[in-house]
Amino acid sequence: MTRTIKILIEYDGSAYGGWQRQPHSPTVQGEIERAIRAFAPEVEHVQVAGRTDSGVHALGQVAHFQTETELEARRIAPAINFHLPRDIVVHEARDMPASFNARHDSLWKRYRYRIYNGPQETALDRRFSWWLRAPLDISAMERAATELVGEHDFNAFRSVHCEAAHAIREMFSITISTVERPPLGTFIDIVFHANAFCRHMCRILAGTLVEVGLGKTEVASVATILASRDRTKAGQTAPPGGLTLLEVRYPDV
Amino acid sequence: MTRTIKILIEYDGSAYGGWQRQPHSPTVQGEIERAIRAFAPEVEHVQVAGRTDSGVHALGQVAHFQTETELEARRIAPAINFHLPRDIVVHEARDMPASFNARHDSLWKRYRYRIYNGPQETALDRRFSWWLRAPLDISAMERAATELVGEHDFNAFRSVHCEAAHAIREMFSITISTVERPPLGTFIDIVFHANAFCRHMCRILAGTLVEVGLGKTEVASVATILASRDRTKAGQTAPPGGLTLLEVRYPDV
Repeated sequence: MTRTIKILIEYDGSAYGGWQRQPHSPTVQGEIERAIRAFAPEVEHVQVAGRTDSGVHALGQVAHFQTETELEARRIAPAINFHLPRDIVVHEARDMPASFNARHDSLWKRYRYRIYNGPQETALDRRFSWWLRAPLDISAMERAATELVGEHDFNAFRSVHCEAAHAIREMFSITISTVERPPLGTFIDIVFHANAFCRHMCRILAGTLVEVGLGKTEVASVATILASRDRTKAGQTAPPGGLTLLEVRYPDV
Repeated sequence: MTRTIKILIEYDGSAYGGWQRQPHSPTVQGEIERAIRAFAPEVEHVQVAGRTDSGVHALGQVAHFQTETELEARRIAPAINFHLPRDIVVHEARDMPASFNARHDSLWKRYRYRIYNGPQETALDRRFSWWLRAPLDISAMERAATELVGEHDFNAFRSVHCEAAHAIREMFSITISTVERPPLGTFIDIVFHANAFCRHMCRILAGTLVEVGLGKTEVASVATILASRDRTKAGQTAPPGGLTLLEVRYPDV
Protein backbone atom coordinates (compact mmCIF):
# COMPACT_ATOMS: atom_id res chain seq x y z
CA MET A 1 0.00 0.00 0.00
CA THR A 2 1.37 3.40 -0.94
CA ARG A 3 1.75 5.78 2.01
CA THR A 4 2.42 9.51 2.04
CA ILE A 5 4.92 10.43 4.76
CA LYS A 6 5.58 13.93 6.04
CA ILE A 7 8.99 14.50 7.64
CA LEU A 8 10.26 17.32 9.84
CA ILE A 9 13.93 18.09 9.14
CA GLU A 10 16.73 20.07 10.77
CA TYR A 11 20.01 20.70 8.99
CA ASP A 12 23.24 22.61 9.17
CA GLY A 13 23.51 23.73 5.54
CA SER A 14 27.22 24.67 5.75
CA ALA A 15 28.48 21.59 3.92
CA TYR A 16 25.77 21.40 1.26
CA GLY A 17 25.00 22.96 -2.09
CA GLY A 18 21.51 23.80 -0.86
CA TRP A 19 18.42 21.61 -0.71
CA GLN A 20 18.00 20.63 -4.32
CA ARG A 21 19.62 17.51 -5.73
CA GLN A 22 22.59 18.21 -8.01
CA PRO A 23 24.75 15.81 -9.95
CA HIS A 24 28.17 16.84 -8.62
CA SER A 25 27.81 18.30 -5.14
CA PRO A 26 26.27 16.99 -1.93
CA THR A 27 22.83 18.43 -1.21
CA VAL A 28 20.34 17.95 1.60
CA GLN A 29 17.77 16.41 -0.76
CA GLY A 30 20.38 14.05 -2.18
CA GLU A 31 21.43 12.88 1.31
CA ILE A 32 17.84 12.38 2.48
CA GLU A 33 16.75 10.49 -0.64
CA ARG A 34 19.82 8.25 -0.36
CA ALA A 35 19.11 7.61 3.33
CA ILE A 36 15.45 6.75 2.70
CA ARG A 37 16.28 4.44 -0.20
CA ALA A 38 18.61 2.49 2.07
CA PHE A 39 15.50 0.90 3.60
CA ALA A 40 12.77 1.89 1.09
CA PRO A 41 14.38 1.56 -2.36
CA GLU A 42 11.12 2.32 -4.18
CA VAL A 43 11.11 5.97 -3.02
CA GLU A 44 11.73 8.21 -6.01
CA HIS A 45 11.54 11.77 -4.89
CA VAL A 46 11.29 13.82 -1.71
CA GLN A 47 9.27 17.01 -2.19
CA VAL A 48 10.26 19.89 0.08
CA ALA A 49 8.26 22.84 1.43
CA GLY A 50 10.95 25.46 0.88
CA ARG A 51 14.05 24.94 -1.20
CA THR A 52 16.96 26.51 0.65
CA ASP A 53 20.13 27.89 -0.93
CA SER A 54 23.64 26.64 -0.38
CA GLY A 55 24.74 27.39 3.18
CA VAL A 56 21.22 28.12 4.51
CA HIS A 57 20.06 26.16 7.57
CA ALA A 58 16.76 24.75 8.79
CA LEU A 59 15.30 23.94 12.17
CA GLY A 60 11.82 23.02 10.91
CA GLN A 61 11.97 22.16 7.20
CA VAL A 62 9.16 19.90 5.97
CA ALA A 63 9.07 17.43 3.08
CA HIS A 64 6.99 14.48 1.94
CA PHE A 65 7.45 11.32 -0.04
CA GLN A 66 5.49 8.27 -1.19
CA THR A 67 6.61 4.87 0.01
CA GLU A 68 5.53 1.24 0.20
CA THR A 69 7.40 0.62 3.45
CA GLU A 70 5.55 -1.18 6.23
CA LEU A 71 7.73 0.36 8.93
CA GLU A 72 5.73 1.92 11.77
CA ALA A 73 5.68 5.73 11.45
CA ARG A 74 7.56 6.18 14.73
CA ARG A 75 10.42 4.04 13.41
CA ILE A 76 10.88 5.97 10.17
CA ALA A 77 12.77 9.01 11.52
CA PRO A 78 15.36 6.86 13.35
CA ALA A 79 15.69 4.65 10.23
CA ILE A 80 16.43 7.67 8.03
CA ASN A 81 18.81 9.21 10.59
CA PHE A 82 20.75 5.95 10.78
CA HIS A 83 21.81 6.56 7.16
CA LEU A 84 22.26 10.35 7.34
CA PRO A 85 25.36 12.40 8.15
CA ARG A 86 25.04 14.07 11.56
CA ASP A 87 24.43 17.56 10.18
CA ILE A 88 21.01 16.47 8.86
CA VAL A 89 18.38 15.10 11.26
CA VAL A 90 14.79 13.95 10.70
CA HIS A 91 12.93 14.74 13.93
CA GLU A 92 9.58 13.21 13.09
CA ALA A 93 7.74 11.22 10.40
CA ARG A 94 3.94 11.03 10.06
CA ASP A 95 1.45 9.35 7.80
CA MET A 96 -0.62 11.88 5.86
CA PRO A 97 -3.60 11.70 3.49
CA ALA A 98 -2.49 10.71 -0.04
CA SER A 99 -3.22 14.23 -1.29
CA PHE A 100 -0.75 15.92 1.11
CA ASN A 101 1.90 18.00 -0.61
CA ALA A 102 4.60 19.67 1.51
CA ARG A 103 5.15 22.40 -1.05
CA HIS A 104 1.63 23.28 -2.15
CA ASP A 105 -0.23 22.85 1.14
CA SER A 106 1.86 25.13 3.33
CA LEU A 107 -0.03 28.07 4.85
CA TRP A 108 3.00 30.07 5.90
CA LYS A 109 6.68 29.95 6.77
CA ARG A 110 8.95 31.70 9.22
CA TYR A 111 12.60 32.41 8.48
CA ARG A 112 15.16 33.97 10.83
CA TYR A 113 18.06 36.07 9.59
CA ARG A 114 20.73 36.38 12.31
CA ILE A 115 23.30 39.17 12.42
CA TYR A 116 26.19 39.15 14.85
CA ASN A 117 27.28 42.63 15.87
CA GLY A 118 30.62 42.83 17.67
CA PRO A 119 34.22 43.96 17.33
CA GLN A 120 35.47 40.54 16.14
CA GLU A 121 33.75 37.59 14.47
CA THR A 122 32.38 34.78 16.65
CA ALA A 123 33.99 31.37 16.85
CA LEU A 124 30.97 29.27 17.84
CA ASP A 125 28.28 30.95 15.71
CA ARG A 126 30.21 32.05 12.65
CA ARG A 127 28.38 29.60 10.39
CA PHE A 128 24.98 30.72 11.67
CA SER A 129 25.27 34.50 11.54
CA TRP A 130 26.45 37.44 9.44
CA TRP A 131 29.19 39.35 11.22
CA LEU A 132 28.87 43.13 11.06
CA ARG A 133 31.24 45.25 13.09
CA ALA A 134 29.45 48.59 12.72
CA PRO A 135 26.57 49.25 15.12
CA LEU A 136 23.09 49.17 13.56
CA ASP A 137 20.19 51.54 14.19
CA ILE A 138 17.60 48.93 15.20
CA SER A 139 14.80 51.45 15.54
CA ALA A 140 15.33 52.63 11.92
CA MET A 141 15.36 48.98 10.77
CA GLU A 142 12.07 48.35 12.59
CA ARG A 143 10.43 51.39 10.98
CA ALA A 144 11.64 50.29 7.56
CA ALA A 145 10.35 46.76 8.19
CA THR A 146 6.80 48.03 8.78
CA GLU A 147 6.81 49.32 5.17
CA LEU A 148 7.24 45.74 4.00
CA VAL A 149 4.39 44.18 5.98
CA GLY A 150 1.18 43.37 4.09
CA GLU A 151 0.48 42.03 0.61
CA HIS A 152 2.98 43.42 -1.87
CA ASP A 153 4.72 42.64 -5.11
CA PHE A 154 8.20 41.82 -3.78
CA ASN A 155 9.85 41.82 -7.20
CA ALA A 156 12.54 44.24 -6.02
CA PHE A 157 13.46 41.71 -3.32
CA ARG A 158 13.91 38.53 -5.30
CA SER A 159 16.73 37.06 -7.33
CA VAL A 160 16.55 37.78 -11.05
CA HIS A 161 16.85 34.00 -11.37
CA CYS A 162 13.69 33.37 -9.32
CA GLU A 163 11.41 31.08 -11.31
CA ALA A 164 8.11 31.91 -9.59
CA ALA A 165 5.41 33.31 -11.88
CA HIS A 166 5.09 36.48 -9.82
CA ALA A 167 6.37 38.02 -6.58
CA ILE A 168 3.12 38.89 -4.85
CA ARG A 169 3.39 37.65 -1.30
CA GLU A 170 1.74 38.50 1.99
CA MET A 171 4.19 39.43 4.73
CA PHE A 172 2.38 38.95 8.05
CA SER A 173 5.14 40.39 10.19
CA ILE A 174 8.82 41.21 10.41
CA THR A 175 10.12 41.25 13.97
CA ILE A 176 13.57 42.39 14.98
CA SER A 177 14.96 41.38 18.34
CA THR A 178 18.35 41.79 19.92
CA VAL A 179 19.95 39.52 22.47
CA GLU A 180 23.30 39.87 24.17
CA ARG A 181 25.88 37.45 22.87
CA PRO A 182 28.75 37.15 25.37
CA PRO A 183 31.45 38.10 25.70
CA LEU A 184 31.17 41.38 23.75
CA GLY A 185 28.53 41.10 21.04
CA THR A 186 24.84 41.17 20.19
CA PHE A 187 22.69 38.99 17.99
CA ILE A 188 20.16 40.86 15.89
CA ASP A 189 17.47 38.44 14.72
CA ILE A 190 15.09 39.42 11.95
CA VAL A 191 12.15 37.00 11.72
CA PHE A 192 10.17 37.06 8.47
CA HIS A 193 6.69 35.56 8.59
CA ALA A 194 4.90 35.33 5.23
CA ASN A 195 2.57 33.08 3.28
CA ALA A 196 5.42 32.27 0.90
CA PHE A 197 8.83 33.57 -0.17
CA CYS A 198 10.59 34.13 -3.49
CA ARG A 199 14.15 33.09 -4.19
CA HIS A 200 16.69 35.04 -2.08
CA MET A 201 13.82 37.17 -0.70
CA CYS A 202 14.77 36.92 2.99
CA ARG A 203 18.44 37.56 2.22
CA ILE A 204 17.72 40.62 0.04
CA LEU A 205 15.29 41.97 2.62
CA ALA A 206 17.92 41.43 5.34
CA GLY A 207 20.60 43.08 3.20
CA THR A 208 18.31 46.07 2.59
CA LEU A 209 17.34 46.42 6.26
CA VAL A 210 21.03 46.31 7.19
CA GLU A 211 21.70 49.22 4.81
CA VAL A 212 18.97 51.12 6.65
CA GLY A 213 20.55 50.16 9.98
CA LEU A 214 23.91 51.46 8.76
CA GLY A 215 22.35 54.74 7.59
CA LYS A 216 23.20 54.05 3.94
CA THR A 217 19.52 53.85 2.97
CA GLU A 218 16.78 56.09 4.39
CA VAL A 219 13.81 54.50 6.13
CA ALA A 220 11.48 56.23 3.69
CA SER A 221 13.34 54.78 0.70
CA VAL A 222 12.24 51.25 1.50
CA ALA A 223 8.67 51.92 0.33
CA THR A 224 10.09 53.45 -2.87
CA ILE A 225 12.30 50.40 -3.47
CA LEU A 226 9.30 48.11 -2.92
CA ALA A 227 7.14 50.13 -5.33
CA SER A 228 9.89 50.19 -7.97
CA ARG A 229 9.78 46.38 -8.36
CA ASP A 230 13.42 46.83 -9.42
CA ARG A 231 15.97 44.40 -7.94
CA THR A 232 18.82 46.82 -8.60
CA LYS A 233 17.27 49.35 -6.18
CA ALA A 234 17.31 46.97 -3.18
CA GLY A 235 20.30 46.11 -1.00
CA GLN A 236 22.82 43.30 -1.30
CA THR A 237 21.87 39.66 -0.87
CA ALA A 238 22.95 38.94 2.72
CA PRO A 239 25.24 35.89 3.13
CA PRO A 240 23.44 32.53 3.34
CA GLY A 241 24.84 31.36 6.70
CA GLY A 242 22.73 33.86 8.67
CA LEU A 243 19.48 32.39 7.36
CA THR A 244 17.52 29.58 9.03
CA LEU A 245 14.09 28.25 8.05
CA LEU A 246 12.35 28.06 11.43
CA GLU A 247 8.90 26.68 10.71
CA VAL A 248 6.43 25.68 8.00
CA ARG A 249 2.77 25.62 8.94
CA TYR A 250 -0.02 23.49 7.41
CA PRO A 251 -3.76 23.36 7.97
CA ASP A 252 -4.67 20.94 10.76
CA VAL A 253 -5.80 17.75 9.09
CA MET B 1 59.29 47.72 27.70
CA THR B 2 57.65 44.53 28.88
CA ARG B 3 53.85 44.69 28.89
CA THR B 4 51.33 42.31 30.46
CA ILE B 5 48.37 41.73 28.14
CA LYS B 6 45.06 40.18 29.16
CA ILE B 7 43.05 38.57 26.35
CA LEU B 8 39.40 37.50 26.21
CA ILE B 9 38.96 34.34 24.11
CA GLU B 10 36.09 32.42 22.53
CA TYR B 11 36.59 28.98 21.02
CA ASP B 12 34.82 26.00 19.59
CA GLY B 13 36.78 23.21 21.27
CA SER B 14 35.56 20.46 18.94
CA ALA B 15 38.74 20.24 16.89
CA TYR B 16 41.24 20.61 19.75
CA GLY B 17 42.87 18.41 22.34
CA GLY B 18 41.84 20.90 25.02
CA TRP B 19 43.53 24.13 26.09
CA GLN B 20 46.95 22.89 27.11
CA ARG B 21 49.81 22.70 24.63
CA GLN B 22 50.69 19.15 23.58
CA PRO B 23 53.40 17.91 21.28
CA HIS B 24 51.30 15.91 18.83
CA SER B 25 47.79 17.34 18.70
CA PRO B 26 46.43 20.81 18.01
CA THR B 27 45.40 22.67 21.15
CA VAL B 28 43.90 26.09 21.80
CA GLN B 29 47.00 27.24 23.68
CA GLY B 30 49.25 26.01 20.89
CA GLU B 31 47.25 27.89 18.24
CA ILE B 32 47.15 31.12 20.26
CA GLU B 33 50.85 31.06 21.11
CA ARG B 34 51.69 30.42 17.45
CA ALA B 35 49.41 33.29 16.35
CA ILE B 36 50.92 35.73 18.87
CA ARG B 37 54.47 34.80 17.95
CA ALA B 38 53.71 35.58 14.31
CA PHE B 39 54.00 39.27 15.25
CA ALA B 40 55.60 39.11 18.72
CA PRO B 41 58.20 36.32 18.52
CA GLU B 42 59.52 37.01 22.03
CA VAL B 43 56.30 35.74 23.67
CA GLU B 44 57.04 32.53 25.50
CA HIS B 45 53.92 31.38 27.23
CA VAL B 46 50.24 32.24 27.46
CA GLN B 47 48.81 31.60 30.93
CA VAL B 48 45.11 30.72 31.00
CA ALA B 49 42.46 31.21 33.70
CA GLY B 50 40.83 27.81 33.31
CA ARG B 51 42.35 24.92 31.40
CA THR B 52 39.55 23.24 29.46
CA ASP B 53 39.45 19.60 28.37
CA SER B 54 39.39 18.30 24.83
CA GLY B 55 36.05 19.19 23.21
CA VAL B 56 35.05 21.81 25.82
CA HIS B 57 34.15 25.29 24.52
CA ALA B 58 34.58 28.82 25.82
CA LEU B 59 32.74 32.09 25.30
CA GLY B 60 34.74 34.09 27.83
CA GLN B 61 38.05 32.39 28.53
CA VAL B 62 40.80 34.70 29.81
CA ALA B 63 44.58 34.45 29.49
CA HIS B 64 47.61 36.69 29.82
CA PHE B 65 51.08 36.96 28.38
CA GLN B 66 54.16 39.17 28.58
CA THR B 67 55.31 40.90 25.42
CA GLU B 68 57.65 43.61 24.13
CA THR B 69 55.35 44.54 21.24
CA GLU B 70 54.62 48.23 20.71
CA LEU B 71 51.33 47.53 18.97
CA GLU B 72 48.43 49.58 20.38
CA ALA B 73 46.22 47.44 22.64
CA ARG B 74 43.21 47.82 20.32
CA ARG B 75 45.22 46.35 17.44
CA ILE B 76 46.37 43.25 19.30
CA ALA B 77 43.15 41.18 19.09
CA PRO B 78 42.82 41.67 15.31
CA ALA B 79 46.54 40.88 14.90
CA ILE B 80 46.17 37.58 16.79
CA ASN B 81 42.94 36.68 14.97
CA PHE B 82 44.62 37.24 11.62
CA HIS B 83 46.84 34.23 12.40
CA LEU B 84 44.21 32.06 14.11
CA PRO B 85 41.87 29.44 12.64
CA ARG B 86 38.26 30.69 12.64
CA ASP B 87 37.14 28.46 15.52
CA ILE B 88 39.30 30.49 17.95
CA VAL B 89 38.70 34.24 18.35
CA VAL B 90 40.32 36.83 20.62
CA HIS B 91 37.63 39.42 21.33
CA GLU B 92 39.69 41.91 23.30
CA ALA B 93 43.22 42.63 24.52
CA ARG B 94 44.09 45.00 27.39
CA ASP B 95 47.22 46.22 29.11
CA MET B 96 47.32 45.15 32.75
CA PRO B 97 49.61 45.83 35.70
CA ALA B 98 52.76 43.70 35.56
CA SER B 99 51.53 41.60 38.48
CA PHE B 100 48.33 40.47 36.75
CA ASN B 101 47.95 36.71 36.51
CA ALA B 102 44.91 35.28 34.67
CA ARG B 103 45.02 32.08 36.66
CA HIS B 104 45.74 33.26 40.20
CA ASP B 105 43.78 36.51 40.22
CA SER B 106 40.39 35.18 39.14
CA LEU B 107 37.60 35.71 41.69
CA TRP B 108 35.12 33.30 40.15
CA LYS B 109 34.07 31.46 37.00
CA ARG B 110 30.79 30.47 35.44
CA TYR B 111 30.42 27.32 33.34
CA ARG B 112 27.31 26.16 31.48
CA TYR B 113 26.52 22.51 30.88
CA ARG B 114 23.92 22.16 28.10
CA ILE B 115 21.71 19.10 27.69
CA TYR B 116 19.49 18.61 24.65
CA ASN B 117 16.34 16.66 25.43
CA GLY B 118 14.43 15.40 22.40
CA PRO B 119 13.48 12.31 20.41
CA GLN B 120 16.41 12.64 17.97
CA GLU B 121 19.81 14.35 18.21
CA THR B 122 20.14 17.92 16.92
CA ALA B 123 21.98 18.80 13.73
CA LEU B 124 22.97 22.40 14.49
CA ASP B 125 23.84 22.04 18.19
CA ARG B 126 25.21 18.52 18.40
CA ARG B 127 28.74 19.72 19.20
CA PHE B 128 27.48 22.01 21.96
CA SER B 129 25.11 19.78 23.89
CA TRP B 130 24.65 16.33 25.36
CA TRP B 131 21.74 14.54 23.74
CA LEU B 132 19.46 12.69 26.15
CA ARG B 133 16.25 11.18 24.85
CA ALA B 134 14.62 10.38 28.21
CA PRO B 135 12.77 13.22 29.91
CA LEU B 136 14.45 14.62 33.03
CA ASP B 137 12.84 15.59 36.32
CA ILE B 138 14.07 19.19 36.46
CA SER B 139 12.58 19.85 39.88
CA ALA B 140 14.49 16.90 41.37
CA MET B 141 17.69 18.14 39.71
CA GLU B 142 17.15 21.60 41.21
CA ARG B 143 16.62 20.17 44.69
CA ALA B 144 19.75 18.04 44.34
CA ALA B 145 21.71 21.08 43.13
CA THR B 146 20.93 23.02 46.31
CA GLU B 147 22.81 20.33 48.28
CA LEU B 148 25.95 21.29 46.37
CA VAL B 149 25.82 25.03 46.95
CA GLY B 150 28.19 26.46 49.56
CA GLU B 151 31.76 25.69 50.55
CA HIS B 152 32.42 21.97 50.31
CA ASP B 153 35.13 19.46 49.67
CA PHE B 154 34.21 18.39 46.13
CA ASN B 155 36.58 15.42 46.09
CA ALA B 156 33.78 13.08 44.98
CA PHE B 157 33.25 15.31 41.94
CA ARG B 158 36.73 15.60 40.51
CA SER B 159 38.83 13.41 38.29
CA VAL B 160 41.20 11.07 40.09
CA HIS B 161 43.83 12.68 37.86
CA CYS B 162 43.12 16.17 39.19
CA GLU B 163 46.38 17.76 40.31
CA ALA B 164 44.95 20.40 42.67
CA ALA B 165 46.15 20.14 46.27
CA HIS B 166 42.59 19.83 47.58
CA ALA B 167 39.01 19.99 46.36
CA ILE B 168 37.57 22.59 48.70
CA ARG B 169 35.64 25.05 46.56
CA GLU B 170 32.83 27.49 47.16
CA MET B 171 29.84 26.97 44.90
CA PHE B 172 27.89 30.24 44.85
CA SER B 173 24.97 28.90 42.83
CA ILE B 174 23.80 26.22 40.44
CA THR B 175 20.92 27.37 38.25
CA ILE B 176 18.98 25.09 35.94
CA SER B 177 16.92 26.61 33.17
CA THR B 178 15.00 25.10 30.28
CA VAL B 179 14.32 26.67 26.94
CA GLU B 180 12.37 25.27 24.02
CA ARG B 181 14.59 24.16 21.16
CA PRO B 182 12.53 23.87 17.97
CA PRO B 183 11.30 21.84 16.35
CA LEU B 184 10.70 19.24 19.07
CA GLY B 185 13.26 19.54 21.84
CA THR B 186 14.35 21.38 24.95
CA PHE B 187 17.70 22.69 26.11
CA ILE B 188 18.40 22.17 29.80
CA ASP B 189 21.19 24.52 30.86
CA ILE B 190 22.98 23.99 34.17
CA VAL B 191 25.08 27.02 35.12
CA PHE B 192 27.76 26.45 37.76
CA HIS B 193 29.08 29.54 39.51
CA ALA B 194 32.00 28.95 41.87
CA ASN B 195 35.21 30.54 43.07
CA ALA B 196 37.16 27.78 41.28
CA PHE B 197 36.70 24.32 39.81
CA CYS B 198 38.61 21.04 39.95
CA ARG B 199 39.36 18.92 36.91
CA HIS B 200 36.16 17.42 35.37
CA MET B 201 34.13 18.92 38.24
CA CYS B 202 31.38 20.49 36.09
CA ARG B 203 31.07 17.38 33.97
CA ILE B 204 30.87 15.01 36.96
CA LEU B 205 28.35 17.31 38.66
CA ALA B 206 26.30 17.42 35.44
CA GLY B 207 26.50 13.63 35.08
CA THR B 208 25.34 13.20 38.68
CA LEU B 209 22.48 15.69 38.36
CA VAL B 210 21.36 13.88 35.19
CA GLU B 211 21.21 10.61 37.13
CA VAL B 212 18.95 12.39 39.62
CA GLY B 213 16.84 13.74 36.74
CA LEU B 214 16.49 10.22 35.35
CA GLY B 215 15.47 8.85 38.75
CA LYS B 216 18.57 6.63 38.98
CA THR B 217 19.91 8.55 41.98
CA GLU B 218 17.76 9.93 44.79
CA VAL B 219 17.85 13.66 45.56
CA ALA B 220 18.88 12.88 49.13
CA SER B 221 21.82 10.76 47.95
CA VAL B 222 23.64 13.77 46.53
CA ALA B 223 24.55 15.07 50.00
CA THR B 224 25.79 11.58 50.88
CA ILE B 225 27.92 11.41 47.74
CA LEU B 226 29.37 14.85 48.53
CA ALA B 227 30.17 13.84 52.11
CA SER B 228 31.77 10.56 50.98
CA ARG B 229 34.52 12.44 49.07
CA ASP B 230 34.57 9.27 46.96
CA ARG B 231 34.67 9.72 43.16
CA THR B 232 33.24 6.25 42.59
CA LYS B 233 29.99 7.25 44.32
CA ALA B 234 29.24 10.14 41.93
CA GLY B 235 27.76 9.89 38.43
CA GLN B 236 29.47 9.57 35.08
CA THR B 237 31.61 12.34 33.61
CA ALA B 238 29.22 14.02 31.16
CA PRO B 239 30.57 14.40 27.59
CA PRO B 240 32.81 17.43 26.99
CA GLY B 241 30.84 19.02 24.12
CA GLY B 242 28.03 20.16 26.43
CA LEU B 243 30.38 22.28 28.52
CA THR B 244 31.19 25.94 27.86
CA LEU B 245 33.23 28.31 30.03
CA LEU B 246 31.03 31.42 30.08
CA GLU B 247 32.93 33.95 32.15
CA VAL B 248 35.92 34.56 34.40
CA ARG B 249 35.72 37.48 36.78
CA TYR B 250 38.61 39.54 38.23
CA PRO B 251 38.76 42.33 40.78
CA ASP B 252 38.33 45.73 39.15
CA VAL B 253 41.78 47.25 38.80
